Amino acid sequence: MGKDKGPTFNLKTPKGTKDWSGSDALLRDRIFTTIANVFKRHGGTALDTPVFELREILAGKYGEDSKLIYDLKDQGGEICSLRYDLTVPFARWLAMNPDVRSIKRYHIAKVYRRDQPAINKGRMREFYQCDFDIAGTFDAMVPDAEILRIVSEVFEELGWTGRYTIKLNHRKILDGVFAVCGVPDKMLRPISSAVDKLDKMPWADVRKEMVDDKGLDPEVADRIEQYVMNKGSRELLDSLLKDETLNANAFAKAGLEEMALMMDYLEAFGVLDKVSFDMSLARGLDYYTGVIYEVVTEGSAGVQADSPEAQKAEKSNKGKSKQPLEEEDRSNDPTLGVGSVAAGGRYDNLVGMFQPKAQIPCVGISFGVDRIFSITKARLEREQKSDALRNSEVDAYVMAFGGKGFNGMLKERMEICQKLWSAGIKAEFSYKLKPKLPQQFKAAEQGAIPFGIILGEEELAAGKCRIKEMGLPEGHPEKEGVEVEIASLVPELQTRLAKKQQGAISSLAQQLQGTSV
Amino acid sequence: MGKDKGPTFNLKTPKGTKDWSGSDALLRDRIFTTIANVFKRHGGTALDTPVFELREILAGKYGEDSKLIYDLKDQGGEICSLRYDLTVPFARWLAMNPDVRSIKRYHIAKVYRRDQPAINKGRMREFYQCDFDIAGTFDAMVPDAEILRIVSEVFEELGWTGRYTIKLNHRKILDGVFAVCGVPDKMLRPISSAVDKLDKMPWADVRKEMVDDKGLDPEVADRIEQYVMNKGSRELLDSLLKDETLNANAFAKAGLEEMALMMDYLEAFGVLDKVSFDMSLARGLDYYTGVIYEVVTEGSAGVQADSPEAQKAEKSNKGKSKQPLEEEDRSNDPTLGVGSVAAGGRYDNLVGMFQPKAQIPCVGISFGVDRIFSITKARLEREQKSDALRNSEVDAYVMAFGGKGFNGMLKERMEICQKLWSAGIKAEFSYKLKPKLPQQFKAAEQGAIPFGIILGEEELAAGKCRIKEMGLPEGHPEKEGVEVEIASLVPELQTRLAKKQQGAISSLAQQLQGTSV
Repeated sequence: MGKDKGPTFNLKTPKGTKDWSGSDALLRDRIFTTIANVFKRHGGTALDTPVFELREILAGKYGEDSKLIYDLKDQGGEICSLRYDLTVPFARWLAMNPDVRSIKRYHIAKVYRRDQPAINKGRMREFYQCDFDIAGTFDAMVPDAEILRIVSEVFEELGWTGRYTIKLNHRKILDGVFAVCGVPDKMLRPISSAVDKLDKMPWADVRKEMVDDKGLDPEVADRIEQYVMNKGSRELLDSLLKDETLNANAFAKAGLEEMALMMDYLEAFGVLDKVSFDMSLARGLDYYTGVIYEVVTEGSAGVQADSPEAQKAEKSNKGKSKQPLEEEDRSNDPTLGVGSVAAGGRYDNLVGMFQPKAQIPCVGISFGVDRIFSITKARLEREQKSDALRNSEVDAYVMAFGGKGFNGMLKERMEICQKLWSAGIKAEFSYKLKPKLPQQFKAAEQGAIPFGIILGEEELAAGKCRIKEMGLPEGHPEKEGVEVEIASLVPELQTRLAKKQQGAISSLAQQLQGTSV
Repeated sequence: MGKDKGPTFNLKTPKGTKDWSGSDALLRDRIFTTIANVFKRHGGTALDTPVFELREILAGKYGEDSKLIYDLKDQGGEICSLRYDLTVPFARWLAMNPDVRSIKRYHIAKVYRRDQPAINKGRMREFYQCDFDIAGTFDAMVPDAEILRIVSEVFEELGWTGRYTIKLNHRKILDGVFAVCGVPDKMLRPISSAVDKLDKMPWADVRKEMVDDKGLDPEVADRIEQYVMNKGSRELLDSLLKDETLNANAFAKAGLEEMALMMDYLEAFGVLDKVSFDMSLARGLDYYTGVIYEVVTEGSAGVQADSPEAQKAEKSNKGKSKQPLEEEDRSNDPTLGVGSVAAGGRYDNLVGMFQPKAQIPCVGISFGVDRIFSITKARLEREQKSDALRNSEVDAYVMAFGGKGFNGMLKERMEICQKLWSAGIKAEFSYKLKPKLPQQFKAAEQGAIPFGIILGEEELAAGKCRIKEMGLPEGHPEKEGVEVEIASLVPELQTRLAKKQQGAISSLAQQLQGTSV
């Protein structure tokens, strides 16, 4: 091994997986940090579960998608599988810990699905989920509303102000609508799933699927249209609350009352204006029992459909069941709808599947980080915010130069670095004994490092060195740097770093709260 | 499912794995953050690789321990295994990316080993590693010295000042010693592994193993003793540099010269006083080619053996091959020696095993976070620093009270929370419509939340509320809280939070830089 000529290995990552490095890894990390900080601000505590679970824990939770679960080989002992999401492990943990009757937990980790990967579409077999869930028995809609406040804080802090909409609906309202329209019980699931396609298909196509493919009475379909095509806010809710037919149904009545509470609380939390009550939102997963929501952003189908341009486009596309753009946008994550970047809802019965005595109601949200990453990166590239696309965050590059017989000043560079590191300043230097000055400048430029610390023999002998801000234009008075006492290098550099950070775009939010829409 | 009485599931995590939650998860997160911040300060960039690799990538890298690798089931397609460490995936990535000739990368992630678990001893099948490695062709010992500077910064910032020692040796010196002592080539590996046990066994036992079990000539063993029992600093190195027999060996000479350079650089980095040149350090893994090092701390065998008490204890234990304490201390991580909390070295040939044309020298360090966590937690408990053992980091609990007919002020509490969240303050409130005041105080106390924000009907009508610092003693002038204008609640609370943080132990380092040793 290793003795042969040429590579003897198949040098690749497994199908549907990839390595993350450089500016991509750094940007994704900053998205994680932004999201985790919001979770902590709301009292979230971290839960970390094993990457694999006993296979029986996952069994019967994902319906047809169970075939996508990765199994571990039987090497003797327990039979295990890689986790498919973070929700089932959370429910398993709650069932296992009867002392915990309520918790706000967050979990940012990878999940695994043996789906057909499409890397250029962002559909991977290994991908991250960022989940926040509130478990416990509380007064109606209070934690539910806080979840949407969390959603709004995350996207505001990612700099998406004005570019996202939280679509909101309630499973009970939907069930009530289907009942009063006359959908037979056994057709509830397929009709609900057809309605859920309204974010990517016009009504005519959805109706066709209901009537032609699923055998629904055309009159029932027309009655459904009168409800599910509505979206709005309080005025829509008010009109539904006056609908006597609908309110005669116990499910619908309960759902509408909860929705009224929800809107009151969303207003108190200052997020009602980010929410669209969208009666076509149905959500795929079976385990939702109350409010359901999905976040869509610019360029995703749901938002486009709201704009007049998109409605025009929709009309001209009648009869086409899929548009290329929408196909591109599709997530590999069945918990997310088409074009959505976060999704969730209330699921009151999942914990009871593990431990009937430990029934604990839950409500939560899952952020699709891979898609948020792609949209964020594309915007940074479009707006040429290269600062946000650096490989590392180094503050200073310590370099030296000298004339003939120059010894490279390695130890002096090391001692300066030591001072900087001890002060918490991120610093690098060349690992060469005698690096050339242009090489050192090149290294600082390649790393987009904002400051060079330059050691020269004469200055050093006088106890001085030079701070040079990189990338200043020709003719700038400080183009050649500023001489400072080595004893005051740390505070001098800290002042300049603070100033640079203040003047420039510094936080991810600031970088992303751009000018273009 | 879920319809039966009683649990129908085996509610547990797989053997050798566990859930992390509450204060344990929070403390571990803070250790990760401390370590990652040091990595970034030295220009480290994140690399994230898939949790599983093609099986052939892992094959032939771990010798006998290969039997501990977890395999995925063959579900059609590629044959994969869970990663066993982070070093082999890094080497695979370097071999796959020929554009990258040099990099400082860090990786904090879980690895998997089907070892016999011993949970109360901290030996798990799923555990974290925190790795930093520098790849590239540079002048001798420069990156090697920076790695030890990183080691020292991590432990200083974890608050371990004066409580850890970096044991340092060089594979070439060891090879030279064995050669000049007369160890036959084919016995190099077993004799080296016997020497490595000197941190947990007295010389007499090691000698016995060499002579009786491995058939080494007793005279050769006695010559080895003259070398490997030495530990020290520059004075030891100087005496070895004068040893003509040793310097006649090319390996030893090269190793000693590199060690001299290393000590110069460690001095420039200000860490020479934390390093012990320990000639008995051999390290288990085969792939090391240059400097090797291991960090030991109080209570671990290596440090105890240096103290007079430990030497006494050692003598009285002669003949016993294992002490219970040492057994307790044993890591499940073969990259770590007994009692060590971090370990690493230079490995110049690993990348070439994947891609002979892409030979890239590397040097790195792996921190054993599970052991660092256990030691840190035990100390916090011993020193009763409960503040560092909270479940979450919430700043304020917003509560309300009122007389007869009190409506609970839910929306008012929500609005106050909204103000606090918008200002970045971590805040919680009761999810009950009409919570009782004692319940709300209890919730704040249980979460060790430092401030209560109290809303009363009369104060609210006057645009005011009360900030109450929790846990003030009876008789304190602010025991009942301080009334403030709601308009200035945010700055008032921020001032108090900043003051509390300043006065109290705030960072992990501050919490851990305790008084007891």
